[in-house]
Amino acid sequence: MNIFPLIGIGISTLNSKHEELDVRYHLILNKHQEILNTHQMEHPGYEKLESMIVTPNEKDDFNKEISQLLSVKDRQKLVMYKIEKDEDVADIHDAYLKLYLLSLRACQPNQLNLTNIFGALPNVAWTNHGPVDVHEIDLLRSKEGEVTVRSVDKFPCMTDYIIPSGVRVADASRVRLGAYLSEGTTVMHEGFVNFNAGTLGPAMIEGRISAGVIIGKNSDLGGGCSTMGTLSGGNDIKISVGEDCLLGANSGLGIPIGDRCIIEAGLYLTGGSKVEVLDSGNQVVEIVKASALSGQNDLLFIRNSISGAIQCKPNIKSVILNETLHKND
Amino acid sequence: MNIFPLIGIGISTLNSKHEELDVRYHLILNKHQEILNTHQMEHPGYEKLESMIVTPNEKDDFNKEISQLLSVKDRQKLVMYKIEKDEDVADIHDAYLKLYLLSLRACQPNQLNLTNIFGALPNVAWTNHGPVDVHEIDLLRSKEGEVTVRSVDKFPCMTDYIIPSGVRVADASRVRLGAYLSEGTTVMHEGFVNFNAGTLGPAMIEGRISAGVIIGKNSDLGGGCSTMGTLSGGNDIKISVGEDCLLGANSGLGIPIGDRCIIEAGLYLTGGSKVEVLDSGNQVVEIVKASALSGQNDLLFIRNSISGAIQCKPNIKSVILNETLHKND
Amino acid sequence: MNIFPLIGIGISTLNSKHEELDVRYHLILNKHQEILNTHQMEHPGYEKLESMIVTPNEKDDFNKEISQLLSVKDRQKLVMYKIEKDEDVADIHDAYLKLYLLSLRACQPNQLNLTNIFGALPNVAWTNHGPVDVHEIDLLRSKEGEVTVRSVDKFPCMTDYIIPSGVRVADASRVRLGAYLSEGTTVMHEGFVNFNAGTLGPAMIEGRISAGVIIGKNSDLGGGCSTMGTLSGGNDIKISVGEDCLLGANSGLGIPIGDRCIIEAGLYLTGGSKVEVLDSGNQVVEIVKASALSGQNDLLFIRNSISGAIQCKPNIKSVILNETLHKND
Repeated sequence: MNIFPLIGIGISTLNSKHEELDVRYHLILNKHQEILNTHQMEHPGYEKLESMIVTPNEKDDFNKEISQLLSVKDRQKLVMYKIEKDEDVADIHDAYLKLYLLSLRACQPNQLNLTNIFGALPNVAWTNHGPVDVHEIDLLRSKEGEVTVRSVDKFPCMTDYIIPSGVRVADASRVRLGAYLSEGTTVMHEGFVNFNAGTLGPAMIEGRISAGVIIGKNSDLGGGCSTMGTLSGGNDIKISVGEDCLLGANSGLGIPIGDRCIIEAGLYLTGGSKVEVLDSGNQVVEIVKASALSGQNDLLFIRNSISGAIQCKPNIKSVILNETLHKND
Repeated sequence: MNIFPLIGIGISTLNSKHEELDVRYHLILNKHQEILNTHQMEHPGYEKLESMIVTPNEKDDFNKEISQLLSVKDRQKLVMYKIEKDEDVADIHDAYLKLYLLSLRACQPNQLNLTNIFGALPNVAWTNHGPVDVHEIDLLRSKEGEVTVRSVDKFPCMTDYIIPSGVRVADASRVRLGAYLSEGTTVMHEGFVNFNAGTLGPAMIEGRISAGVIIGKNSDLGGGCSTMGTLSGGNDIKISVGEDCLLGANSGLGIPIGDRCIIEAGLYLTGGSKVEVLDSGNQVVEIVKASALSGQNDLLFIRNSISGAIQCKPNIKSVILNETLHKND
Repeated sequence: MNIFPLIGIGISTLNSKHEELDVRYHLILNKHQEILNTHQMEHPGYEKLESMIVTPNEKDDFNKEISQLLSVKDRQKLVMYKIEKDEDVADIHDAYLKLYLLSLRACQPNQLNLTNIFGALPNVAWTNHGPVDVHEIDLLRSKEGEVTVRSVDKFPCMTDYIIPSGVRVADASRVRLGAYLSEGTTVMHEGFVNFNAGTLGPAMIEGRISAGVIIGKNSDLGGGCSTMGTLSGGNDIKISVGEDCLLGANSGLGIPIGDRCIIEAGLYLTGGSKVEVLDSGNQVVEIVKASALSGQNDLLFIRNSISGAIQCKPNIKSVILNETLHKND
């Protein structure tokens, strides 16, 4: 990726042992002086910032200056971090900077090296008082009163860090930081988007986009539908959905599909499923594994409700997203 | 509807440009002097209020009086709104008043004209500090400290505005304002109820009730089941479920069904599915499209686990809701 | 269970009528002087505490002492409660103490008598101000400003009371107090764990664990999968999943299964489903009801995608959990 090298400046929250729980970046700047995030913050330019990071002596003064600017508080620490090139995730600074790049739509899913991201992120209690060490909740409660925990996880909710323009996320718990949501995307209550996954254009998402999965523009994921991920399953093939596709409610997808494809509601199409391929006259032409149909356009997948066979035929319907539902202003 | 005309008095939250983000109605009064909501608020009667709304001069004094009564704060504005008759949604005041009428159970789903409701509602960040303009989150965070975002959506969660008597909603994120939940309804964690949708009596809801869908009394929607909506799908037929029905876990429904019907767990019945109709001796009598069975009572739908065919037979089992689970006091 | 008798000391939250809404236990002590929870609290030993509970005179002074220690505030009350032996749930003190024992992993699911627990628990609004009487939300809002309601339910979220070591719960709304989550368990956003249900070892939970259901170690519940409960269904058989099992995404399970079993993604296996049993040469050996295969090891259940029949064959694949995803530190 030619966006590197780049520098991030932000604030991390600390536990009582001064270990970092998260990083909130206020400035992400590449060497073309392009600011990649929307926060407003004065800065002295890329070269100056770079020299601060590498020369500890100068860094101290600068830290002080920046700390005041960002109003670093108790249990917080200034973070200045530079990614020279895209390598395995080194630590929490690195992890958050890459997650930011994804949710800021500066990099698409599967373009960044995210190896070791689980190891780099601590397990954190996400509360109404912000990120808290899971062992320090009772302590906090005795000091601060009511503490409500919304999540105990390595990843925060995206919308607590970044709200991309033109999106709706009906239940913020269901979209992790690192999700890539394009303008015009609506993630409904039953939708879910993992980190390193998302939509490349307007989309209605009522199903689950697993890590590594990409959805093309004007596609519709019906309520409760599933896309197979590569993290916990045994699957090595990256799933993707093309443009103008419809995954029916409660359906599932185990192969990448092209444009203008439809998966019938309730049908789970795994890569190993045998499929009857029908011609436009509804005659069975051949039987193939679903994986053999990967990436093809204009297919309709159904389960024949009398014979019980999974069938694939040319898709002649087009899917039209309801535009009213996508004006997210 | 003969509940109109009616008047609502409440408070809206403003962004920094003085645009309205929501409306919280404290009084909803029709011309029979019936108060439709449960908030307590002194008022001078329907006619007096009506004259205030139409006569700006008098309105000012009254506004002041009411503003004090309701303690209108910074970033808030007094709202006095009258619906004369049921027309397209005009603005945010209109939209919220109609959503209130639904969740207050003053009007059933599909009885109100909700055309243009998406256009009338702004996209809002719903936070622990209340509704916030999506562009003003960072500003708020710099002033107020921790801001957690639970949703970025046009509709708020119902229970932040109205908690109808005798209901449980295990995950408040999953029920939008405008849902109609009857006494004795439990919406479990996996349940979901959109606006303009709901239950007409006691019900156990662990599946999704799409916009426009109505569930009859004593019916049970199993975990993860789907009811097809008319908003984003291509479906024009309003789905409904009669009384004493059971939609099995992970099932789906694309036709309206009558009373005492059962859809087997895992079966998605779309309108176009061909169905083998069996007599009480388990003999296939005919094959019809599921839509031809719309609205009929006492049907059991299964997928034959050997032949793979969707079958419909007379339902002889009765569904009994577990009463203990429905005493929501 | 030989953990009884035991004593719990904690604080309950009161509504304006001085009725109890919850109990937060700070000390749970059995007569072997074992402390079962992780809160730190000085105490005079089991016998002394026991005598306090039974002798009201002494109790008063002690109450005062303990009240100061625990800093009991307005709208709160000191709770001292003893379970002599495991009987039907008597009241809210009893209910919470048993729910604590489950989530503290002191008792496994189905080991405690939980009869009448629904009757013993009030329906409560769980808010950013803690538990609130559902009828007193408007009052609280007028006094305290913003009140956000996350749930209206008899059970609170587990992580607001107990965060067991070595677990992740990506959406805290989806795990009730009384869930039993073993070290190394990750409950993803789409996962759900009811009270009196859980995991006996490391597990990846992206599906729903109904009340009474137990999952063996190293098993993986795919996204949106369903396990049948005994609370609201007509099912009397307790469902359980053995070790090293995989329930595919959007699948469902209506029978208990043994170790190393796989249910194909999208397949709902009910107890009454007829199943073709295949030998290792893929020949149908017999047709049986799924319930006849209950508890057996090394089975793979699929729906043949050409014939539509549910089939069971010997499972030769092994399921390996991704260890990186389970290091929950």
